[in-house]
Amino acid sequence: MRIEQLFGIDLPLIQAPMAGAQDAALAIAVAEAGGLGSLPCAMLTPDQLRAELESIRAVTDKPINLNFFSHTMPTSDAGQEQRWRACLQPYYQQYGIDPEKIASGATRTPFDHKMAEVLEKYRPDVVSFHFGLPEPELLQRVRNSGCKILSSATTVAEARWLEQQGVDGIIAQGLEAGGHRGFFLNSDLNTQVGTIALLPQIIAATDLPVIAAGGIADRAGIKAALMMGAAGVQLGTTFLLCDESRISEIHRQALLDAEYPTALTNIFSGGAARGIVNRVMAELGAMSSSAPPFPLATAAIGPLRAAAEQQGVGDFSPLWSGQNRTGCRSVPAAELVNYLFEGLERG
Amino acid sequence: MRIEQLFGIDLPLIQAPMAGAQDAALAIAVAEAGGLGSLPCAMLTPDQLRAELESIRAVTDKPINLNFFSHTMPTSDAGQEQRWRACLQPYYQQYGIDPEKIASGATRTPFDHKMAEVLEKYRPDVVSFHFGLPEPELLQRVRNSGCKILSSATTVAEARWLEQQGVDGIIAQGLEAGGHRGFFLNSDLNTQVGTIALLPQIIAATDLPVIAAGGIADRAGIKAALMMGAAGVQLGTTFLLCDESRISEIHRQALLDAEYPTALTNIFSGGAARGIVNRVMAELGAMSSSAPPFPLATAAIGPLRAAAEQQGVGDFSPLWSGQNRTGCRSVPAAELVNYLFEGLERG
Repeated sequence: MRIEQLFGIDLPLIQAPMAGAQDAALAIAVAEAGGLGSLPCAMLTPDQLRAELESIRAVTDKPINLNFFSHTMPTSDAGQEQRWRACLQPYYQQYGIDPEKIASGATRTPFDHKMAEVLEKYRPDVVSFHFGLPEPELLQRVRNSGCKILSSATTVAEARWLEQQGVDGIIAQGLEAGGHRGFFLNSDLNTQVGTIALLPQIIAATDLPVIAAGGIADRAGIKAALMMGAAGVQLGTTFLLCDESRISEIHRQALLDAEYPTALTNIFSGGAARGIVNRVMAELGAMSSSAPPFPLATAAIGPLRAAAEQQGVGDFSPLWSGQNRTGCRSVPAAELVNYLFEGLERG
Repeated sequence: MRIEQLFGIDLPLIQAPMAGAQDAALAIAVAEAGGLGSLPCAMLTPDQLRAELESIRAVTDKPINLNFFSHTMPTSDAGQEQRWRACLQPYYQQYGIDPEKIASGATRTPFDHKMAEVLEKYRPDVVSFHFGLPEPELLQRVRNSGCKILSSATTVAEARWLEQQGVDGIIAQGLEAGGHRGFFLNSDLNTQVGTIALLPQIIAATDLPVIAAGGIADRAGIKAALMMGAAGVQLGTTFLLCDESRISEIHRQALLDAEYPTALTNIFSGGAARGIVNRVMAELGAMSSSAPPFPLATAAIGPLRAAAEQQGVGDFSPLWSGQNRTGCRSVPAAELVNYLFEGLERG
């Protein structure tokens, strides 16, 4: 089944939820253009989510996907936090930051009962999770709210596990994808798989609609994924320069230079995520053994990011990007969607 | 231009040269079936190459691709060799191997004037290089022999460089590919790119025919690559179970289990290459800082491989494999080629 049928939308497109890079404006624009717009909710409080949903309801009745993280919160470890701050110490000095004044803690909380309550009230059409799924009781509350449920798989084993939990569709997240890897059964980055290899294997291993994500940025890529049997495609990076995107000017400029390589890094959050290689990634190594687990690394690097960005410098900013940003265009998202799907045979 | 025109063949297919896994039999079978068969020459002496070419000439007049390595030979470093052997010491003990009796040295030599002499005599249709290109004088001898020249690019920068040196086509080697990564300008594995992202970017950046390699294993994958603008596809792993393949029974069994993950490892040669994760990769870490540079790591691990394989164990064998082995079939290569291209529109 193609995702047009699954979600009641016009195009086989999901706009990837990108926490920190977008708000409801992008989701609404893509939804109105015929795709499935996504609202990243991992950094929202329940009250903020309610407000976003009210504002979405006011302008569109198209389906919207709400995306939550379902990671297990690690216990914070004072020793580890200290090692991480020691690692960043030279930068604190450079920017005159007193690490004693930096609060630790998490900026991204996993999906919980308070959020489930919001879903029960607003009954969104689609809910997607990143990092596996919430515990069964929570998942049941989502299901009972009438939401179609998606999650990402980075391996065949993860896809099979998701199918067993009863999701309605699987996002095959190839390692080309920007932002956080959604892995939850296997964290060995060395064995993460590219889209063109992952997609057919997940399609063969499960009976669910499989959405291709990672490295798809143009009409040919979309057609190729559909030809390989994808039920739809999920594009994120391609929307980052759109008018409705909320990224910084620094991030925007980095995306415009097609030559900057990307790498998986855990420096900005503790979890492996793909971004454009910048100073802190180059100097500390993109994957640092000193970084605390997701999402605890963010607190200590946040003030550096803020201080550097004030000077117009992205040395400490997560410049999330997939491996293919050739499709990025500085236009309204609806125009980009129309362009990408022009002449494409409907499913 | 599609590679059918470029090489005078029937199908947009290159059988990937796989040193150590095949000889002329596979190349001949694929050539006769309409693709471009490849003979890996990096582990042959000039005399052995002459013998292979004579035997090929005796049975087919179809174009064949001769593949050479064009790495720079590193100077062997006694201290490094010692560190590498120390790393392997517990295994030597287990297998009763006396490391004093292991010769060091290289099993893979770069393309040189002696090989160029062979090309001048036999004038093969196509020569492909891995790890960049040989020095200009050598390359000119290949060109003067009337050979079409190919090499692999793992980044857009490498593709541009190859175009500047005047190659006739570029193999876009996505990181899904099995065996050795062909990188030569940038060895940072963190920034290596998946096929679905790499292919369109190299196509956009150069004016040459671009062949898609990595993760392509079935008809849909082939069609997808061609739709994205590839001039042809290169498949390697998919041929490894064919009757003409020369891999060990151990390698064969590992390939048959679709669940074994692959990783890039430098343990077997010193160069990063993709293979199925086995004991030595798991225990030493797939990328070991103790391994000497390519191709010098092979000498010390070779006796372990031999001893283990004698006991039917692949713990020290390079089990080369790409990330998608769903297309592997234990049939004659011609049958596999016919199956893969059945009904495919000719270019």
